[in-house]
Amino acid sequence: MIIVPGSQSQNLAYEVAKLLNEKYVRVEFKRFPDNEIYVRLLDEINDDKAVIISTQRNQNDAIVESFLLYDALKDEAVEEIILVAPYLAYARQDKKFNPGEAISIRILAKIYSKLFDKVITINPHEEHIKEFFTVPFISLDAVPKLAEYVKDKLDNPIVLGPDQGALRFAKSAAEVLNAEYDYLEKTRITPTEIKIAPKNLDVKDRDVLIVDDIISTGGTVATAAKMMKEQGAKKIIAACVHPVLIGDALNKLYSSGIEEVVGTNTFSSEVSKVSVAEVIANSLK
Amino acid sequence: MIIVPGSQSQNLAYEVAKLLNEKYVRVEFKRFPDNEIYVRLLDEINDDKAVIISTQRNQNDAIVESFLLYDALKDEAVEEIILVAPYLAYARQDKKFNPGEAISIRILAKIYSKLFDKVITINPHEEHIKEFFTVPFISLDAVPKLAEYVKDKLDNPIVLGPDQGALRFAKSAAEVLNAEYDYLEKTRITPTEIKIAPKNLDVKDRDVLIVDDIISTGGTVATAAKMMKEQGAKKIIAACVHPVLIGDALNKLYSSGIEEVVGTNTFSSEVSKVSVAEVIANSLK
Repeated sequence: MIIVPGSQSQNLAYEVAKLLNEKYVRVEFKRFPDNEIYVRLLDEINDDKAVIISTQRNQNDAIVESFLLYDALKDEAVEEIILVAPYLAYARQDKKFNPGEAISIRILAKIYSKLFDKVITINPHEEHIKEFFTVPFISLDAVPKLAEYVKDKLDNPIVLGPDQGALRFAKSAAEVLNAEYDYLEKTRITPTEIKIAPKNLDVKDRDVLIVDDIISTGGTVATAAKMMKEQGAKKIIAACVHPVLIGDALNKLYSSGIEEVVGTNTFSSEVSKVSVAEVIANSLK
Repeated sequence: MIIVPGSQSQNLAYEVAKLLNEKYVRVEFKRFPDNEIYVRLLDEINDDKAVIISTQRNQNDAIVESFLLYDALKDEAVEEIILVAPYLAYARQDKKFNPGEAISIRILAKIYSKLFDKVITINPHEEHIKEFFTVPFISLDAVPKLAEYVKDKLDNPIVLGPDQGALRFAKSAAEVLNAEYDYLEKTRITPTEIKIAPKNLDVKDRDVLIVDDIISTGGTVATAAKMMKEQGAKKIIAACVHPVLIGDALNKLYSSGIEEVVGTNTFSSEVSKVSVAEVIANSLK
């Protein structure tokens, strides 16, 4: 098995290769003057199985790049090619929200399924996207890694998902921390006033871990943190797998009373402090 | 038949729809804050044949966008979808120039062939890319349109391709202009000195049309024009189908003594003065 990096995942791919003691393939990445991308495998390929590790941060570039890597590998007679997309672009456009829309991840899944023999990702926003793939689709969980990271930083914390959809992430972290978990529920108190509180638990005088798959604008988590502070929470850490963190998201989060924001390296950012290399490596063993 | 624009080809698609008297479908294009693209068909679709017109100027964005448009159209039960890519991205990476390289257009052709029922483009750099497609691949010629544009601007011109590969474009223009045509040949005179001259014709006291498929950096055409001027050429116009014109290409061209640079709207630029709408419309009749 050989490990082939995408241009945005060279470090991650190298870590995975080291953990597995498998060959890391050196790849030349460049752009032509007209902005077309170019890939070239610099090592001789004598293996019939390859793993492309390509986080899709600059989405369209990474998608096309994975096609080019596929082509170069197939030309070297590689039989089986696995795509590891730790951050899977377009996974949030997973249904029609309005008539006439594309279901973006459906068509990408269709194309990936024509090319790759297996697709592996980490904590996609919705698990049901698996249905769009006609090859094995593996969804890994990096939340335990985040939980390990915060373990010594929080004292007997409550783990909270910012909404019901995030309860599964809270549960996954709580298992590692041996902690209670819950999700935040919105209640409309007056026409203009909303209360956000844990459905069943009380955060008064407790450390809190808020955990989600993606933090994008940071609005939801910042509002939640502010409310938890008002309800007497002590130290709050916000953790997410994919720190997309658009614009001033970190400003918003730190202004809300959060002590630390942490994410993984599925998406390169200032807070990508936790590596998913081991999670990926384990899935390839 | 309905005509569906890509975000970079709304005007061109509208022109084609008008010429064919077919329905132009309104599409919403936007980007999410994380930069993912979004498409939505705003009109009701009651046709079983659609033509997507998507020039691939911002290559990777346009490629992914064409996938999304495909998905949205298929969801409306459109049976047959034709992709018109007037400028076909990655067509120049059509063979391995070095070991380990991807043949970019090969893998894109494979993907397009899985989705679309026909692919139409205009003057691809090499005609042999047709072999990579497993659906009908139509390559149209917009050079006659360029020739019509310059017809009244040049007096009994010689038409020149900047190299032997461009002879076919020179021929195509010469037929419309009823003119002589030739290509430029490089001869090494001393180890440091190169002479560039038409293989068979003499440009002295003649108007000249230099014609090529793409002008990228402009270097080749600018050097050729300078040489033609030295050899006594009068008025020189440089015409190309795809005015990619990277960086200071136009500066270079106008500094070399060229009177006018003209291209088509397969690639939006300052000199995209000739529309390929009629060429496309004729191929869809």
